[in-house]
Amino acid sequence: GCEFMDRESARAIIRPRSVIAHKGSNGHCLVIAGSVGKTGAAAMAAQSALRAGAGLVSLAVPAALNPVLESKTTEAMTIPIGPEDKWHFLAGALGELLSVAKGKDAVALGPGLGTAPSTVYLVHSLLTALDAPLVIDADGLNAVAVAPELLLRRRGRVTLLTPHPGEMARLMGVSVPEVEADRIGCARDFATRFQVYLVLKGARSIVAGPDGTIAINGSGNPGMATGGMGDVLTGVIAALLGQGYHPFAAARLGVFLHGYAADLMAEETGTRGMVATDVQEALPRALQRLTVAEGGAAGTSIN
Amino acid sequence: GCEFMDRESARAIIRPRSVIAHKGSNGHCLVIAGSVGKTGAAAMAAQSALRAGAGLVSLAVPAALNPVLESKTTEAMTIPIGPEDKWHFLAGALGELLSVAKGKDAVALGPGLGTAPSTVYLVHSLLTALDAPLVIDADGLNAVAVAPELLLRRRGRVTLLTPHPGEMARLMGVSVPEVEADRIGCARDFATRFQVYLVLKGARSIVAGPDGTIAINGSGNPGMATGGMGDVLTGVIAALLGQGYHPFAAARLGVFLHGYAADLMAEETGTRGMVATDVQEALPRALQRLTVAEGGAAGTSIN
Amino acid sequence: GCEFMDRESARAIIRPRSVIAHKGSNGHCLVIAGSVGKTGAAAMAAQSALRAGAGLVSLAVPAALNPVLESKTTEAMTIPIGPEDKWHFLAGALGELLSVAKGKDAVALGPGLGTAPSTVYLVHSLLTALDAPLVIDADGLNAVAVAPELLLRRRGRVTLLTPHPGEMARLMGVSVPEVEADRIGCARDFATRFQVYLVLKGARSIVAGPDGTIAINGSGNPGMATGGMGDVLTGVIAALLGQGYHPFAAARLGVFLHGYAADLMAEETGTRGMVATDVQEALPRALQRLTVAEGGAAGTSIN
Amino acid sequence: GCEFMDRESARAIIRPRSVIAHKGSNGHCLVIAGSVGKTGAAAMAAQSALRAGAGLVSLAVPAALNPVLESKTTEAMTIPIGPEDKWHFLAGALGELLSVAKGKDAVALGPGLGTAPSTVYLVHSLLTALDAPLVIDADGLNAVAVAPELLLRRRGRVTLLTPHPGEMARLMGVSVPEVEADRIGCARDFATRFQVYLVLKGARSIVAGPDGTIAINGSGNPGMATGGMGDVLTGVIAALLGQGYHPFAAARLGVFLHGYAADLMAEETGTRGMVATDVQEALPRALQRLTVAEGGAAGTSIN
Repeated sequence: GCEFMDRESARAIIRPRSVIAHKGSNGHCLVIAGSVGKTGAAAMAAQSALRAGAGLVSLAVPAALNPVLESKTTEAMTIPIGPEDKWHFLAGALGELLSVAKGKDAVALGPGLGTAPSTVYLVHSLLTALDAPLVIDADGLNAVAVAPELLLRRRGRVTLLTPHPGEMARLMGVSVPEVEADRIGCARDFATRFQVYLVLKGARSIVAGPDGTIAINGSGNPGMATGGMGDVLTGVIAALLGQGYHPFAAARLGVFLHGYAADLMAEETGTRGMVATDVQEALPRALQRLTVAEGGAAGTSIN
Repeated sequence: GCEFMDRESARAIIRPRSVIAHKGSNGHCLVIAGSVGKTGAAAMAAQSALRAGAGLVSLAVPAALNPVLESKTTEAMTIPIGPEDKWHFLAGALGELLSVAKGKDAVALGPGLGTAPSTVYLVHSLLTALDAPLVIDADGLNAVAVAPELLLRRRGRVTLLTPHPGEMARLMGVSVPEVEADRIGCARDFATRFQVYLVLKGARSIVAGPDGTIAINGSGNPGMATGGMGDVLTGVIAALLGQGYHPFAAARLGVFLHGYAADLMAEETGTRGMVATDVQEALPRALQRLTVAEGGAAGTSIN
Repeated sequence: GCEFMDRESARAIIRPRSVIAHKGSNGHCLVIAGSVGKTGAAAMAAQSALRAGAGLVSLAVPAALNPVLESKTTEAMTIPIGPEDKWHFLAGALGELLSVAKGKDAVALGPGLGTAPSTVYLVHSLLTALDAPLVIDADGLNAVAVAPELLLRRRGRVTLLTPHPGEMARLMGVSVPEVEADRIGCARDFATRFQVYLVLKGARSIVAGPDGTIAINGSGNPGMATGGMGDVLTGVIAALLGQGYHPFAAARLGVFLHGYAADLMAEETGTRGMVATDVQEALPRALQRLTVAEGGAAGTSIN
Repeated sequence: GCEFMDRESARAIIRPRSVIAHKGSNGHCLVIAGSVGKTGAAAMAAQSALRAGAGLVSLAVPAALNPVLESKTTEAMTIPIGPEDKWHFLAGALGELLSVAKGKDAVALGPGLGTAPSTVYLVHSLLTALDAPLVIDADGLNAVAVAPELLLRRRGRVTLLTPHPGEMARLMGVSVPEVEADRIGCARDFATRFQVYLVLKGARSIVAGPDGTIAINGSGNPGMATGGMGDVLTGVIAALLGQGYHPFAAARLGVFLHGYAADLMAEETGTRGMVATDVQEALPRALQRLTVAEGGAAGTSIN
């Protein structure tokens, strides 16, 4: 099957929220992200999860970067990991991270992690050890590409990858043109072979399920061809997984919502010079437009 | 008695402000808050107090976190407490904090404090020693839950607690379902037994006074089910206490205003993806709508 | 004489700007400000100078606070002064500060300086040594109050003080009620005795010149009774002095503009919960309304 | 020849963007900038490059300033260079910087670099060694002024300078009035002699090509006479070079766009009190107005 994602299909996925929801019922996401020079990626993934409706977000970062990330985020809580003078994650952080991951409803792994060998090793260990639904992006994917067979050890647990064509090529050991020549085929092959959910990003993002089902995203615009957009998507999908959406629904709704928020920005200020935090901050309005029936302020003290 | 808080009852509580007010006449609040990873809670409580009309706000934080909080706040003044390398409050901070609390019109205690034993011990000491009207929230409540009988030592002084159902359950030594099964009863029981003012948060927040009087809040929406909303409420109530409102009035107006600001946000961008700083920044507009008779710019050089 | 400052008198003061102005022709202000916990005051004074049209702003701060102030300001340049581990100014900073002050068009001294004895001593030395037009506020005034006769050593140079009634009382060695009982008299007495320009802040700010001329400000509203508003005013007046306005014109236009920006904010979001940075950011719009004849975008590529 | 740059000529330069663009196809810019007290200049150059459509921006800074710049930027990635305790670039940074510059589509050199001898020496080395199209501004120009003949070593590579009249005077070893007396002549002489592209900033910025072609900019307003505007222009031109625009097109479109964004701001809030980040953030709207034919949201999911 191959679904085209438009506003109507997005609307059909979005679930009503209980009027007696509390922050616990909207999911607690853990974002594992960041290395020196790339704290922005971590901040965007965390803040985007909140902007996509996560109840709580904890952001685990290399300890030396904690002051920067406390300055950059407010509603998200940060968790410094590892030695105080380390600017990237070490393999030895496994225990701390597993302890922090306990009870979380979704984990995002990858934004701005860097490619230090010790960090790559850590990602491999986390793949096997983390039980929560897991979104892997960016440097997390580069680590997976070294040993994609590790994904098979996650059977029975939810794994969702969000590669761009370059990362897809590395994951499959092929060239970027080979990926571009058959985007649907590549996404489906990898998803079914490793039993994961996969979003292959690009002008028409492809969502593939482990059973080979495909959806094609209809939102988004060229203004998204700029750094950090992937970090925002990672946060959005983690938030949806944490709210209990089925992974295929989370992937489809996530990519549509992400592109739709960018389309709202394009409507306001055009596509050129759009930055990723613009899209992040437009997420609530995008969600509002997709849930009009609920009414913006329906059931509040205003009306 | 059991009052339902709507716009009219909120309006009836709000007092006119003198045209010759100066920053001293609007109250000086002290916020005692923060531990590593949770500076956002401290910043939101402090900034929300300013957004609810406090004249001055001082924010006491563990010394190692002071640079982060100087970066995060501008109008609030920070006060680093304890040794320069400590990321949470130690019991030994009592003297410094009491000295800082001298002359303050209200104190907020709890946002992001953490649960280190030394911090818990400090909260216990502060309970007994602080004379100013005191709002306790979050980790402050968790510390109180260890020894709620300490609240009785505050007789003759104003104490206001703002638990969510989980914290209420810990304070009473019961389960969350037991709290949810009789929200009004729990709030009233605790408030009368320990002679405190209490806000039991939730979809319809309950305000209970030490004489058993109850009010039920009519503002707010499901978008508030996300982290940090409680920190904002704490700042709002502290600001109202500092402006000289009676504690029962401060609690009722505070919860209504907090929910009403969230309802204004819902009107603008929907309830999904709303974050706590959105509500914080909407507080002035909420206050403006509740005081239209005064006129936005009445008595200014514009009209 | 006693002038009432309204929009028309403010308009009459504002000078046209040359179409071939460059950043040098709009004045380079130096702000000497800040101590631990009070970096916000320093940031607001510096940013407000830019928002009032300064061409360049340099912000001299105790060296240990420099990273915080680099985070908090962008267009202003910071200058770390003194030892790297000091959180307030020491008397020994005199040489560094005089070297930094060389060639500046105006100096603002005081916001958030703190009251350490060494800092007080430094202020005394600066009073005598600084040649540029000097605005003194906040803790700068508290230092002056210890030895106001030092002001007489500034004869032939421009000195402008901006006390609130509490600071005025300390400067004159009288009580606050005595100041409030005769605001015009106090302002005139001090200004003529010490040959300074003086703004006595309050619900109707008084401007006094060294010849006893008085102006009374007609803008502003009760929303300004909150921390940081004085720091904004200091920056505004320094910017106007740096642009070459006569000190009496800078004082009158500065207080009017400051109150007028607050009145614009009141029009938009009401007076309650207004914070000082709101007023700071409204300054350009206030200037725009006072210079309509020039046309917002007149002479640009838009029309 | 001498072209006057207006909206129509700007429109004629702007190229359509491919609907299948990805962040790589919009260029990866490297900004080499910053020294203690001047991190704002570095942040503005980097962020302005993103606001002018760069796909990726890396910001190389002296290592001690990296935490500040991580706090100040989000989408741009920072790269700490040199020893951890150094607040400015040393000559020894050459190797690190060349390694970082590898594969970049454009390099901006200069904003906030400072004038330490070791930094000047580094700029000289970079002039010779950097292959990518290079924009030099601010302290970068001051370093070039010491030995402008080094520019001749860049033959065959693209070099673009953006001096204001003071910097132009230093580059040519003449006085500022001499520059002002013949702006076009100076720009043309220097550009042809050293075979560079040159923007001579001022009320009517002059663009000169190495063949002596001249363009005169028609956008901009007196509100731009304030600190940081040059850093924004540097980022804009680097972004355009990185997107593959011919250097003469990048210079002409860059200066027009920069002034046009300032004109949009003037339309909204007037020219007085405008700051450089206002112009930076208005760049997308300026680009939108210049590309209306493409339609703001054309080809998105909104229409």
